[in-house]
Amino acid sequence: MSSTATVTESTHFFPNEPQGPSIKTETIPGPKGKAAAEEMSKYHDISAVKFPVDYEKSIGNYLVDLDGNVLLDVYSQIATIPIGYNNPTLLKAAKSDEVATILMNRPALGNYPPKEWARVAYEGAIKYAPKGQKYVYFQMSGSDANEIAYKLAMLHHFNNKPRPTGDYTAEENESCLNNAAPGSPEVAVLSFRHSFHGRLFGSLSTTRSKPVHKLGMPAFPWPQADFPALKYPLEEHVEENAKEEQRCIDQVEQILTNHHCPVVACIIEPIQSEGGDNHASPDFFHKLQATLKKHDVKFIVDEVQTGVGSTGTLWAHEQWNLPYPPDMVTFSKKFQAAGIFYHDLALRPHAYQHFNTWMGDPFRAVQSRYILQEIQDKDLLNNVKSVGDFLYAGLEELARKHPGKINNLRGKGKGTFIAWDCESPAARDKFCADMRINGVNIGGCGVAAIRLRPMLVFQKHHAQILLKKIDELI
Amino acid sequence: MSSTATVTESTHFFPNEPQGPSIKTETIPGPKGKAAAEEMSKYHDISAVKFPVDYEKSIGNYLVDLDGNVLLDVYSQIATIPIGYNNPTLLKAAKSDEVATILMNRPALGNYPPKEWARVAYEGAIKYAPKGQKYVYFQMSGSDANEIAYKLAMLHHFNNKPRPTGDYTAEENESCLNNAAPGSPEVAVLSFRHSFHGRLFGSLSTTRSKPVHKLGMPAFPWPQADFPALKYPLEEHVEENAKEEQRCIDQVEQILTNHHCPVVACIIEPIQSEGGDNHASPDFFHKLQATLKKHDVKFIVDEVQTGVGSTGTLWAHEQWNLPYPPDMVTFSKKFQAAGIFYHDLALRPHAYQHFNTWMGDPFRAVQSRYILQEIQDKDLLNNVKSVGDFLYAGLEELARKHPGKINNLRGKGKGTFIAWDCESPAARDKFCADMRINGVNIGGCGVAAIRLRPMLVFQKHHAQILLKKIDELI
Repeated sequence: MSSTATVTESTHFFPNEPQGPSIKTETIPGPKGKAAAEEMSKYHDISAVKFPVDYEKSIGNYLVDLDGNVLLDVYSQIATIPIGYNNPTLLKAAKSDEVATILMNRPALGNYPPKEWARVAYEGAIKYAPKGQKYVYFQMSGSDANEIAYKLAMLHHFNNKPRPTGDYTAEENESCLNNAAPGSPEVAVLSFRHSFHGRLFGSLSTTRSKPVHKLGMPAFPWPQADFPALKYPLEEHVEENAKEEQRCIDQVEQILTNHHCPVVACIIEPIQSEGGDNHASPDFFHKLQATLKKHDVKFIVDEVQTGVGSTGTLWAHEQWNLPYPPDMVTFSKKFQAAGIFYHDLALRPHAYQHFNTWMGDPFRAVQSRYILQEIQDKDLLNNVKSVGDFLYAGLEELARKHPGKINNLRGKGKGTFIAWDCESPAARDKFCADMRINGVNIGGCGVAAIRLRPMLVFQKHHAQILLKKIDELI
Repeated sequence: MSSTATVTESTHFFPNEPQGPSIKTETIPGPKGKAAAEEMSKYHDISAVKFPVDYEKSIGNYLVDLDGNVLLDVYSQIATIPIGYNNPTLLKAAKSDEVATILMNRPALGNYPPKEWARVAYEGAIKYAPKGQKYVYFQMSGSDANEIAYKLAMLHHFNNKPRPTGDYTAEENESCLNNAAPGSPEVAVLSFRHSFHGRLFGSLSTTRSKPVHKLGMPAFPWPQADFPALKYPLEEHVEENAKEEQRCIDQVEQILTNHHCPVVACIIEPIQSEGGDNHASPDFFHKLQATLKKHDVKFIVDEVQTGVGSTGTLWAHEQWNLPYPPDMVTFSKKFQAAGIFYHDLALRPHAYQHFNTWMGDPFRAVQSRYILQEIQDKDLLNNVKSVGDFLYAGLEELARKHPGKINNLRGKGKGTFIAWDCESPAARDKFCADMRINGVNIGGCGVAAIRLRPMLVFQKHHAQILLKKIDELI
């Protein structure tokens, strides 16, 4: 690679990492991996298993499988591993008394929080909340975090309905137990074409990514708007893209004006991830926020996949410089804890209107504290920015070198949150398979896209390996 | 208590447990607890907080709060702590390499399971599955476990629809992305009045417990049948109760025959817990299963609260001796891992029809293995049975001694899964508050019920303390 000479790195975050991938078997999984998966199939579905992993031996950016194959991992357990496999800080924390206590005496947080919970909630979440966000509700996963965001918007709408006595009416109390209005009213959440917000019944009603996610499931009749389909390179399609974004905003305006029932919230990903790494400009999000404000619709930013640094800022939406913070921001994946941030106490429902047994997994908030502290201590956001720029430049070069192979390269200036389109879905699938057997674990998304989701400890020397492998394979 | 003399116990499971409750402050929480909650309120909602807990100091069946108050806990973090606070086996396990590895390298289980996963799935779940169940899907909580059970029933129904080419039609693929039929068909899940199955949008549509759970939320127009309202004592109302159960079965038959869309599943708790500890006879469940089979409706038993031993058997529904295993059994709470058991591979959907990032929390399955092993090693099911019988006899005696105070005592022969009705909702709330300040943490359910949910390590000497406190307070 011609870029090699430009790399200077003073520190390797994982000094004991392998020098690079090494592949020992003809297939991945190899014989031991296949045997392990076969054994698992006695007890559970293995239809989506790619290969079993030896997590004890995996380190930093490298996965080790059961046959001793060593793979550079730029997929990171579906974008959930933030600071490397077997990160020493986390392993040490795992053996602490604090962790043992909270793991094995898992409290029902809503009723009986542990004594140090204010500190954990602050140091494990609020301290790193997006600008303007003040409060947190923890949940178990991104999918249910999104659902709780919808519920808060719905409860706000419902609780603020004028009522003769101020209290809920007898009709409301009775009808809701029958799943009927007025107690269970028809209200809607707006989402965008190609979005992914989870696969529980409420979140699935806002997910619009692929039929396999939705077929056979009843869904709420909620509306969707188009997400901008931008053309690349951006600098060559400025006017066209601005027009496309305005078209989508106009659609949102239309929907909010005409929908047959109140739309109480709108959810959007800063970069549509499962749907194909689709981007929109800060201007689009400014206009979206203004339109939602005009219609009094709560603005939920789903940072489940974009959050925690991959785009070069802790939260992707911080790069928009919105005039007001979003009403709610949802998080999970690399945060390890999941939940929602919000800032307006008016959104907080009455006691027990939002409640469940565990109210999140308290251990995961302890873990978040260590993760986010490490991101700060190791200056990982700056690492992501510089490695992302380096990687993007290398991919631009490869795109020029191999015409038609790396299309619609996107994510410039968005850290390592980079994607491109292959020639076809089949070419994409083959590329992922070829990369794997050549020592790189890489993921796809959307119709024919490759998405890069390395960890925050992915460094230039890893990027060089990745670029070289891509160059060789296409 | 006159029953004291009958107690013989060779072993105390927690030799270092306090001798009994001790209360040091005039209120619970006391000054330190209040200050801690106040500090938490800066970051999150504390409207449902009862009191903050010092989990490091809590032990066995005893909770210790921040002011040094020691409470006997018969509520167990909403029925989720199985084998005592700071159980030495679990604390030791927490410090193991195995736990550190799986905690801090949390895999996306569906794609990249850890090498030892077959063993964990077996020893942490399948080995203890209800009779006849063979496979497991892990989830994060009871609520989403139930939703996945609904999804499996729905996918089974949808996938088995005859289609011209065998594959999904273009219309199905397109319409589902618009949340519309035929891709997103109208299908329903039947549940029972007063049931609780969770508070996500799909599970909430089957929950019928209280308005506070449902108000303001859109819900699927799914049907509900009456759950039998039995009269107590059971032996004095045999014929009447049999008639009541038949009435409910007839309702199920009516609904399955006449509902406007296909009912693909029916979910029921062995004992309706949040809804007031409502019981039904084995005969009722036999008839229910037969009716569901007749209509080809999947039978889901929600053992989230009843599972893992509190009723004297590992699974409450094992006491019915059904001719066939239920189609699915859901679990969470004391299992710590959550998920569903099933036995028929025909229920397994195509690859990626059920999928999410983590597919459960793998650490929690490791924890389950230790919990269930301990239940076996310490013969805790027999402990629950004998303590339950002792406790029930003591409560019967108190009910006679204090007429009108302990009404509709129920749970005879169901281990420690015992409940009764107070004179009124206000009397119930006052009783819980009085018990707390007298050193017993106890919970309510339904309209005016007290539910006992001690751990499996609750012994006769604890039961004596509990009975004595109840006697003194009513």
